Amino acid sequence: MKKFFKVKTIDQALEYTGQFPCMAPENISLTESVGRILAEDIQSDIDLPDFSRSIMDGYAVRGSSTFGAGEGNPAYLNVTGTVSMGHKPDFSVGPGEAVRISTGGMLPPDADSVVMIEHTEAIDDATIEVYRSVAPGHNMVAVGEDIKKGDLILRSGKKIRPQEAGMLAALGKDTVKVYKMPLIGIISTGDEVVAVHESPGPGQIRDVNTHTLSGLIEELGARAVSFGIVGDDYTALLTKSAKALAQCDMVLVSGGSSVGARDFTIDVITALEDSEIFFHGISISPGKPTILAKIQNKAFWGLPGHVVSAMVVFHRIVKPFIEHVSGRADDHAEKIRLKATLSRNLPSAQGRVDFIRIRLKQNGGVLWAEPILGKSGLISTMVKADGLIEIGMNTEGLDEGTQVEVILV
Amino acid sequence: MKKFFKVKTIDQALEYTGQFPCMAPENISLTESVGRILAEDIQSDIDLPDFSRSIMDGYAVRGSSTFGAGEGNPAYLNVTGTVSMGHKPDFSVGPGEAVRISTGGMLPPDADSVVMIEHTEAIDDATIEVYRSVAPGHNMVAVGEDIKKGDLILRSGKKIRPQEAGMLAALGKDTVKVYKMPLIGIISTGDEVVAVHESPGPGQIRDVNTHTLSGLIEELGARAVSFGIVGDDYTALLTKSAKALAQCDMVLVSGGSSVGARDFTIDVITALEDSEIFFHGISISPGKPTILAKIQNKAFWGLPGHVVSAMVVFHRIVKPFIEHVSGRADDHAEKIRLKATLSRNLPSAQGRVDFIRIRLKQNGGVLWAEPILGKSGLISTMVKADGLIEIGMNTEGLDEGTQVEVILV
Repeated sequence: MKKFFKVKTIDQALEYTGQFPCMAPENISLTESVGRILAEDIQSDIDLPDFSRSIMDGYAVRGSSTFGAGEGNPAYLNVTGTVSMGHKPDFSVGPGEAVRISTGGMLPPDADSVVMIEHTEAIDDATIEVYRSVAPGHNMVAVGEDIKKGDLILRSGKKIRPQEAGMLAALGKDTVKVYKMPLIGIISTGDEVVAVHESPGPGQIRDVNTHTLSGLIEELGARAVSFGIVGDDYTALLTKSAKALAQCDMVLVSGGSSVGARDFTIDVITALEDSEIFFHGISISPGKPTILAKIQNKAFWGLPGHVVSAMVVFHRIVKPFIEHVSGRADDHAEKIRLKATLSRNLPSAQGRVDFIRIRLKQNGGVLWAEPILGKSGLISTMVKADGLIEIGMNTEGLDEGTQVEVILV
Repeated sequence: MKKFFKVKTIDQALEYTGQFPCMAPENISLTESVGRILAEDIQSDIDLPDFSRSIMDGYAVRGSSTFGAGEGNPAYLNVTGTVSMGHKPDFSVGPGEAVRISTGGMLPPDADSVVMIEHTEAIDDATIEVYRSVAPGHNMVAVGEDIKKGDLILRSGKKIRPQEAGMLAALGKDTVKVYKMPLIGIISTGDEVVAVHESPGPGQIRDVNTHTLSGLIEELGARAVSFGIVGDDYTALLTKSAKALAQCDMVLVSGGSSVGARDFTIDVITALEDSEIFFHGISISPGKPTILAKIQNKAFWGLPGHVVSAMVVFHRIVKPFIEHVSGRADDHAEKIRLKATLSRNLPSAQGRVDFIRIRLKQNGGVLWAEPILGKSGLISTMVKADGLIEIGMNTEGLDEGTQVEVILV
């Protein structure tokens, strides 16, 4: 019997991310940019706004004209004009003067604040009473208050959220340089595995991993391509692996990653040109039989065949590699895990990290993590699950009531 | 001056979701199903697995043949065959017998458990020593252990995650009935607004809301279609709104939703046939000038023009409507909010819900929510933000150290 070699801890495994290059950049339309990873630093070449803007409907004034005004003691101002939206006013505002302005309008020269229309009353066409004083800067946005010319606004490696797309729009970037989306090949292995549209004969099962892994890949903003099912056959797996490597930026092989007589992934990796095995085995459960190799500068994975194991390894190990190759380098809030309270005692073996599927339940103001037990071949347990929790390598188990961090799945 | 009327609280506003119909269903390929909303209940017409499967490489046995076996006292079993993967064994396993089996192999009749290969030693081709006893059911998955025939597995309204796609694959569903993705039209208004590719003249700014709102819509799994920019012109907005309503399942108009002289959305709604205004004004800040109407059975929104206000209203108010129309009806973990600790005192006005942009920071084992201050017209504040927190209507403010719930943005 073959043996696992180079077994790594999770942290050791993740140290290999830097071994793989990021995708090349490409230019895309701003309208397609949300979810993509920025491949350039964005420095503003303008002040935003580049003119003083009103943020209220009302009157542009010199604040000093309103000082001391109040309900019982209004200030009287002469209305000398109206700001036309989207145009530069060709008049200024002197002491004791006011100019009609709408939200978004450009303040005339010398105006330094805006009185809300709600705090005024028109006496006649040319005079208003003002019932509240405004300080300079009030009810307006100053030049450069949002963004200053020359500011570094966004860094390469940032995932573009709707607000980053909005920022790029404000700066006039209708094309954006982003990293290409990596193409991730999936090969499912096993003599007993048949495609979804086939009727399994006795002893056969349908291919589940291609579908779970494709979904996980696409949720990350990468593209999945299925290379179908290969039997437990060294030559067939070698041929299919070479093909997937030629077409893709990363390859996942599910099944065949352990040390049994039918496990050919390690032999296939060894046979492929320009290959280096980083590890075979991770000290986690489920998911131990995981292989990572670098082949022709691409990550080539052997993942466990059990559906839950493959998903656990993907969430905790493969995902950071895909993010790295995708160019993602931001410190994002998605990394922060939800905290919950364990609803029952959980035993755990020392010397490995145990991943437990859990369901979240709000009850009595507490967010409970309820373990879902079941073998790692049962897809139904992942369907019931909201997340995974991790029991550390040197922990014998967790007591009911322990605060746990949840990896949402 | 016009006035807000029918001002609602958040909860009152959300009660209107049921006023709008869900999308019609369509059949799509399983490979495109992740992220979509299931439009049928899924009941299993098979047991999964439909045969007893080994989950280890080893020997299929009757557990009773190994009872009492241990390191110093091995059981001796006769190896009588090998299970061929993906086939039904045509032999059974008697007392004192063992059959070679790989992970995923079908147990022969009368075998009730599997001995791991690691716990055996081959004496010769036909005999093994077994060093550990196995109980019936050990190292195997029984018929129906994952899913039982007739079980209701997934309910209509469930968002399909990778594991649900895996489950559908296991059940042989290569096409899936899902709700159509709603098409959401976006109209940006304002005489001062120009398109991204244009150079704003004095007093003009580029259209940001179309881009933030499109991104938010697409993150929810709906489709956004931009109808461009309309000036502050009643007739132009009426024409464009009618066009958007004809083509889309919901319409968002940004800007023009308040009560000023340039705010035409409410007049346009009134003029459109078969329209009913549900509210004008929500008691939140920012975001008060929000309109919801039902026009020709579709939700028609007037959203505030300030970029932050529009995003806040989208996250808290519009999103549940889009989810409802999309058919989503599952009790999903995404609804559970991250908890953080407020890093400083925050004042708040009573009588409205205040939304504060925050940045998350891990420090000393505590997840801090640091308020980001700035006017609601500043897109840069949303770029800096990881989330929003909510200060309740009857709260005067929050003290430093308060536990807050974060809406990730």
